[in-house]
Amino acid sequence: MFSTATNKPQPDAVGKAEGAVPSHAPRYELLTIGDELLLGLTANGHLTWIGGQLARRGVTLQRNVTITDEAGAIAAQFTESWARSEVLITTGGLGPTCDDRTREVIAQKLGQCLVFDPEVERGIAERFVQLGREMTPNNRKQACKFERGELLPNPNGTAPGLWVEQDGRVLVMLPGPPNELQPMFTSQVLPRLARRGLLADGETYVQIRTAGLGESMLETKLQPIFDRHPGLGVAYCAHQWRVDCRVSSPDGRYSMAQLQGIAEDCSTRLGDDFVCYGHDTLEKVTGDLLRGLGRTLAVAESCTGGLLANRFTDIAGATKFFQGGIVCYSNESKMQLLECPECLLDQHGAVSAECAVALATGVAERLGADFGLAVTGYAGPCSGTKGSPVGTIFIGLHAPGGSWSRKLSYPGLRAAVKERTVTAAIDWLRREVLREAQQTATRAPLPN
Amino acid sequence: MFSTATNKPQPDAVGKAEGAVPSHAPRYELLTIGDELLLGLTANGHLTWIGGQLARRGVTLQRNVTITDEAGAIAAQFTESWARSEVLITTGGLGPTCDDRTREVIAQKLGQCLVFDPEVERGIAERFVQLGREMTPNNRKQACKFERGELLPNPNGTAPGLWVEQDGRVLVMLPGPPNELQPMFTSQVLPRLARRGLLADGETYVQIRTAGLGESMLETKLQPIFDRHPGLGVAYCAHQWRVDCRVSSPDGRYSMAQLQGIAEDCSTRLGDDFVCYGHDTLEKVTGDLLRGLGRTLAVAESCTGGLLANRFTDIAGATKFFQGGIVCYSNESKMQLLECPECLLDQHGAVSAECAVALATGVAERLGADFGLAVTGYAGPCSGTKGSPVGTIFIGLHAPGGSWSRKLSYPGLRAAVKERTVTAAIDWLRREVLREAQQTATRAPLPN
Repeated sequence: MFSTATNKPQPDAVGKAEGAVPSHAPRYELLTIGDELLLGLTANGHLTWIGGQLARRGVTLQRNVTITDEAGAIAAQFTESWARSEVLITTGGLGPTCDDRTREVIAQKLGQCLVFDPEVERGIAERFVQLGREMTPNNRKQACKFERGELLPNPNGTAPGLWVEQDGRVLVMLPGPPNELQPMFTSQVLPRLARRGLLADGETYVQIRTAGLGESMLETKLQPIFDRHPGLGVAYCAHQWRVDCRVSSPDGRYSMAQLQGIAEDCSTRLGDDFVCYGHDTLEKVTGDLLRGLGRTLAVAESCTGGLLANRFTDIAGATKFFQGGIVCYSNESKMQLLECPECLLDQHGAVSAECAVALATGVAERLGADFGLAVTGYAGPCSGTKGSPVGTIFIGLHAPGGSWSRKLSYPGLRAAVKERTVTAAIDWLRREVLREAQQTATRAPLPN
Repeated sequence: MFSTATNKPQPDAVGKAEGAVPSHAPRYELLTIGDELLLGLTANGHLTWIGGQLARRGVTLQRNVTITDEAGAIAAQFTESWARSEVLITTGGLGPTCDDRTREVIAQKLGQCLVFDPEVERGIAERFVQLGREMTPNNRKQACKFERGELLPNPNGTAPGLWVEQDGRVLVMLPGPPNELQPMFTSQVLPRLARRGLLADGETYVQIRTAGLGESMLETKLQPIFDRHPGLGVAYCAHQWRVDCRVSSPDGRYSMAQLQGIAEDCSTRLGDDFVCYGHDTLEKVTGDLLRGLGRTLAVAESCTGGLLANRFTDIAGATKFFQGGIVCYSNESKMQLLECPECLLDQHGAVSAECAVALATGVAERLGADFGLAVTGYAGPCSGTKGSPVGTIFIGLHAPGGSWSRKLSYPGLRAAVKERTVTAAIDWLRREVLREAQQTATRAPLPN
C-alpha cells in the first residue's frame, strides 16, 4: 500500500514536489456513509487511509463525518459539508441495493439529473460474465452519472466513482470496498486533484523512521540539526517502539532536495536507530537487508505464538529469505522440535535467557538458516511467576557471529504484549543484520 | 472485549433487558478529537468500539464527527453537535499537554467554570509515584472538573473522564487511550446512561453467529422461523466466511426469553453452520470444544505463515489445547520438520491435497496432538502456476477418525488470502471437533 519508502530518498521524488505545494490550504472533508460504521461492525479504515494519502501530498483533512445510510441524514450532512469544503470526498452508498442512496440523494441536492450511460452498463455486464454471475436489474443504476460530471472507471468492481465540479468546489464519490476505492484514489483522484492545484503533485515531506528511541530522546538528538534550518517544519509521531519524524517546508523555502539533505544528516546522527526513509515496516527493512546479504532467517516463538512468523510472511517474496518458523508453545514441543535439553528447561525454566538462546540456535540449525530469532515469555493474563510476572520476555538471537539473549519487561494486555515483543525482536535482528552488512562492506578484499 | 458469548444464551441476561429498551430513541453523537486520526496516523477505533457497545444496548449512534485538536474547530463542532444530541460523547484532548484543549474549550461553550479538585490531584500524584515517574506541573489541569459536573475516575491512567448534565442533555468526555476509555465506558458510563433511561440495561438482541453460509442462503433457511413471529426485528451482517444474524424486538412485544427461544430454533435448524450465540470468535469456540473433549491441536502452515497459530494463541489459556505449530515455508522445512516425503513433493508439488494431508498428519505426530490442521497454497502476488493460480489453497485435517484434505480458491490480495484461508481452515476444524463431541455424547455407555 505504501510504496515509496527506501533507505535512500527516491531520486524520482526529487523536484517533483518542488514548488508544487498548494499556495493556499484548500479545505478537505470526508463523508463516510454506512450504518455498519456506526454499529461497530466495520472499522472506518477509509478515514485512516485517505487521511494518510492526503497528508503525504501536503493537505490536512479538516473533518470526517460518519453518518447512516438513511436518505435524510445523507441529504442534511451533504448540504452542510458541501457548503464548507473546497474538496468533499464521500465513500459508500454507490452499490446496487436499495440502501445505496448516495448517488440519488446528492444529485437532487446539487440540482443535477442522473444520466444513464449504456456503455458503462456494458462494462458492468461484462464484469458479471467474467465472474460467472448473473447481473440482476438493480445493477443498472451503477451506470448512472451526473449530467454535469464524470465517471471514474472501477477496474476492481461494478460501481464506478463519480467526479463533479460545481460552485467552485470538487465532489469525489467513491465506492466503499477498499480494494476498489484505494486504486481508484491513487491512480485517478490524486492526479486530478494535483492538476487542479488542490494538492502537491508529489510527497511534501521526508519521513525519517526510527526505532528504539523515545520521542523526547529523538528530539534531543535531532534538534541541533533542525536549529540550523529556520522555518523547517518538524513533526514527530510515536508508535510502539518506533518514532517517525517528518521534515517539511511549510513556507516553501526548502526544496525537496534540501529536505532530503537534512534527513540524511539526521540518519547519520542516529546510526542504527535510523530504520528507513518513508513508510516501510521494520520487517520489510530487515528482510531487504537479509536478501541483500544473501542470508536466511528462521524463527522460534513461544508466547508470541505465530505473530513473529506472520509479520515476516506478510512481506511479498518472503520466501527469498524466510526459511520457516516453529511455534513451540509447550515444553514438549521445545524439546521435540528444537532439541532444547530437558535439563535446561528444568534448571532455568522455559522463560529464561538460556532457553531463548537454545531456541534461537535450535531453529537456525533445524531449518538451516543463518539467523535464528526466538521469543519466550509470559503474555498473560494467567501466566507468570513471582520472579517473572506477566510481560517478562526473553529474546534469543543466533547470528553468524554468535548467540545472545536479552530480557524485556512489557506488562499489559495479552495482544499488546505480543505486538510489542515482536516489534522489539525484529528491531534487534535488524541491528545485528545491519552490523554484519557494515562489516561486509568495510572488510578488505582478500589479496589475489 | 466481548464477553457475553456462549453456546447457550446466558440465563442471567434473561429478564434484565425486558422492558428496559428506551421508550424513545435518544439521539447519540460521538465527537472524536485528534489530528492523528485525520492524518492517518491512528485508526478511529473509538467509533467502532463505542458504536458496537451502544448497539448492544439498543441504541444506534447517529453520527460521528472527527476533528483536529485546534481550539476553534473543537468549539464550532461542539456547538453544532451539542444542539442536536441528547447524549454527546467526546474522546481525546483531556491529557496534560498544550494540545489537550477539549476540557477548556467545552467548559467555555457551556458557560461553566473549571474547578480544581485537590483530592483528584493527590490521586494523580500517587499514580506517578507508582509508575516511578516525575509528575510535571502540566498534569495538574487533569484534576479540574466542571463546576456543575462530575469526574469519572480513571484507574488506568491520569486523566479522569467528565460527566455533565445540562440543558436536558448529557455530555460524556472520555480520555483517548483505549485501555483507559473502554473500562471507564463499560463500568461507569453505560450504567449511568441506563439509570437515566437513555439505553437498555442489558443486551437488546440475541446474536446468532453462523459460518460457511452466504447471507441469502442463511435468510432462506431462517425465514420460515421468522415468518411465525410478526414484528420480530431481524438484521444480517456478513463478514468473511461468517454471517451474523441478530433478532430483536423493536416494539417490545417479545421478551429476551422469547428471543432466545427463537434463536434456539434457528440454531437447531442450522446444525453445524451455527457457531455460537453472541460475539465469540471461531477459534475461541473451536478451542472451547477441544478443551471440553480434552483434545489437543497442532498446526502446520505454509502460505498463511504463522497467522493460523497466531489466531489460536490470541486466546488466553490456549496452552490448555494448543500444542504448537510449524511454519514450513520452504520445501526443506516440510521435509525436515514434518517428514513430508521428498518424492511426494516431487510428484504432487507442495501445493497439493497430498502435501496438505502429509503436513497435517506430520504435525500431529511430531507434536503429539489429537488434531493436526495444515494449510498449503499460493498467497501471491508472485507465486502460483498455470494450473494452480494465486489463491489456490489446500487445507489438510488430521483427526482421530481419519485424515482429509480440501481445495479452496481464494483469489485476492496476499493479506486477504491469508485471512480467508485461516478462517476457513478453523471452521473446518470446528465442524470436525463438533462431530466428535456429538459422537462422544451419543455413544452408549459400556455395560458394567
